Amino acid sequence: MDFITVIDYIGTFAFAISGIRLASAKHFDWFGAYVVGFVTAVGGGTMRDLMLGYSHPFWMDNIGYLLVSGSALLFCIILRRYVVRLNNTFFIFDAIGLGLFTVVGVEKSIAVGQPMWVGIIMGTMTGAAGGMFRDIFINEVPLIFRKDIYAIACVLGGMIYWVCLKMHLTTEMTGLITAISVIVIRVLAVHYNICLPCLRAEDDLESKK
Amino acid sequence: MDFITVIDYIGTFAFAISGIRLASAKHFDWFGAYVVGFVTAVGGGTMRDLMLGYSHPFWMDNIGYLLVSGSALLFCIILRRYVVRLNNTFFIFDAIGLGLFTVVGVEKSIAVGQPMWVGIIMGTMTGAAGGMFRDIFINEVPLIFRKDIYAIACVLGGMIYWVCLKMHLTTEMTGLITAISVIVIRVLAVHYNICLPCLRAEDDLESKK
Amino acid sequence: MDFITVIDYIGTFAFAISGIRLASAKHFDWFGAYVVGFVTAVGGGTMRDLMLGYSHPFWMDNIGYLLVSGSALLFCIILRRYVVRLNNTFFIFDAIGLGLFTVVGVEKSIAVGQPMWVGIIMGTMTGAAGGMFRDIFINEVPLIFRKDIYAIACVLGGMIYWVCLKMHLTTEMTGLITAISVIVIRVLAVHYNICLPCLRAEDDLESKK
Repeated sequence: MDFITVIDYIGTFAFAISGIRLASAKHFDWFGAYVVGFVTAVGGGTMRDLMLGYSHPFWMDNIGYLLVSGSALLFCIILRRYVVRLNNTFFIFDAIGLGLFTVVGVEKSIAVGQPMWVGIIMGTMTGAAGGMFRDIFINEVPLIFRKDIYAIACVLGGMIYWVCLKMHLTTEMTGLITAISVIVIRVLAVHYNICLPCLRAEDDLESKK
Repeated sequence: MDFITVIDYIGTFAFAISGIRLASAKHFDWFGAYVVGFVTAVGGGTMRDLMLGYSHPFWMDNIGYLLVSGSALLFCIILRRYVVRLNNTFFIFDAIGLGLFTVVGVEKSIAVGQPMWVGIIMGTMTGAAGGMFRDIFINEVPLIFRKDIYAIACVLGGMIYWVCLKMHLTTEMTGLITAISVIVIRVLAVHYNICLPCLRAEDDLESKK
Repeated sequence: MDFITVIDYIGTFAFAISGIRLASAKHFDWFGAYVVGFVTAVGGGTMRDLMLGYSHPFWMDNIGYLLVSGSALLFCIILRRYVVRLNNTFFIFDAIGLGLFTVVGVEKSIAVGQPMWVGIIMGTMTGAAGGMFRDIFINEVPLIFRKDIYAIACVLGGMIYWVCLKMHLTTEMTGLITAISVIVIRVLAVHYNICLPCLRAEDDLESKK
């Protein structure tokens, strides 16, 4: 198991934990919590693989993602008392996962010959769409649409990937710089509480179509 | 029309009825109720086919699924008074559909060379994901995540399929045993009111991302 | 840029505006509003392309859809005061988009050898599923399931396409007649306030699964 795989599983674990915790707030049973955790972790990559024309989603190649999500469920069941105290740890894991997932999404797009702007969308989808599915499952308005810099960190990371490519850096160096950029942007955005502006509602919305 | 097709349409009818009834509780119009019924019936299999790399979803090969869903809508419109009285009948039909859909999902996974653990997931998705889409459409938290043994019956059925394969039973016998197991598990679970445990909510969930 | 492309972008713009306006009513940030607008515009066609076995969704071939959605966001941010006054204009644009999207959906189905009834479903999905995704994202029950003649206009348009094909009209003439029919049906339905009947709720729905 190489270094990238370890990072990938850490990201999967952190994403699954975030799904399972929100599911538990809605009183889901273990099965439901597991599904929400798994989908939070692999949902973005699944949609990416379907849209890029891969014959099947990445997690079917390797039972590891299923097992890591299962261990996240066990973790939440058994060590429930400690989960809240580990918030900062999970936040860092989540940011690391976000950075790595973005890189994977961009690279898989380029591998099938898509242009770089599609790569940016796919990197963002890999990082952020899982959380969107999670929020749809628990019947909430997706957080990524109204809070923090989250998906935008992936978008910026994708742009940095593009710049690195233009500068003819190696794939490894490009991936590393991109992942670190996403992590740093995410951490700084939360630390300094940086948000995108919201659209103001129109007063009149009877006309909603 | 062979025996399997008849069973398949009975399952489709029962699933569509469940979608249409919940849609009617939300005052959907006929078109909306039809879409919800159809998606409840074929949504799980559609997602399965997309993920397994089939070129198109199964229901495009045969207009039967569309017509069966349409007859379920007609049934609910015309015989509305009798629908409630038939609850037990629908429950049995639904369980039969669940059993058969699980077998179909497992078999289509094996047919494209996926390992058995993917087959179990695909069998469960075929049986249970339609109900999940239904609940997302009517804007409710999916029932399968917090009530009864439903999807778990598919998971157990998939495992039984695996055991039968290992014992070198014929495909027919394996499918039959699996379907009956799912039906029996589902019926017993409802009869004895067996549920999975729920995750307890953390007191503190401000930290929710 | 030919005439069809202009019409296509006008429809995309109108659909994106509808997504962005509803997102702003839910206080989404700019990114969230953009995603909802983009998905409203291209979500139906994306699902269609995945189901028809195309290797990737249409919008990846051409950055235009991304840019048009972006200009819809800018429009809503900068000219917010005028958006409400332009309701009637948007309504017409939306109807034009609906008509054109229906034709595109039918044609792409026929192009991969699907039967005409699949073409009608795909035409309807192209026109109406984007709005369904929009409503799921903003956590509302989809409007197309309970209001107006919207998706039904696409269904009728698809049937008219079929009749034109049977009469051996040219592809151009068939597409034109279909698109105009959808637009006229949509406009008349809103003007005369024509709705489909709703299903009445059963009194007893404890029995809901």
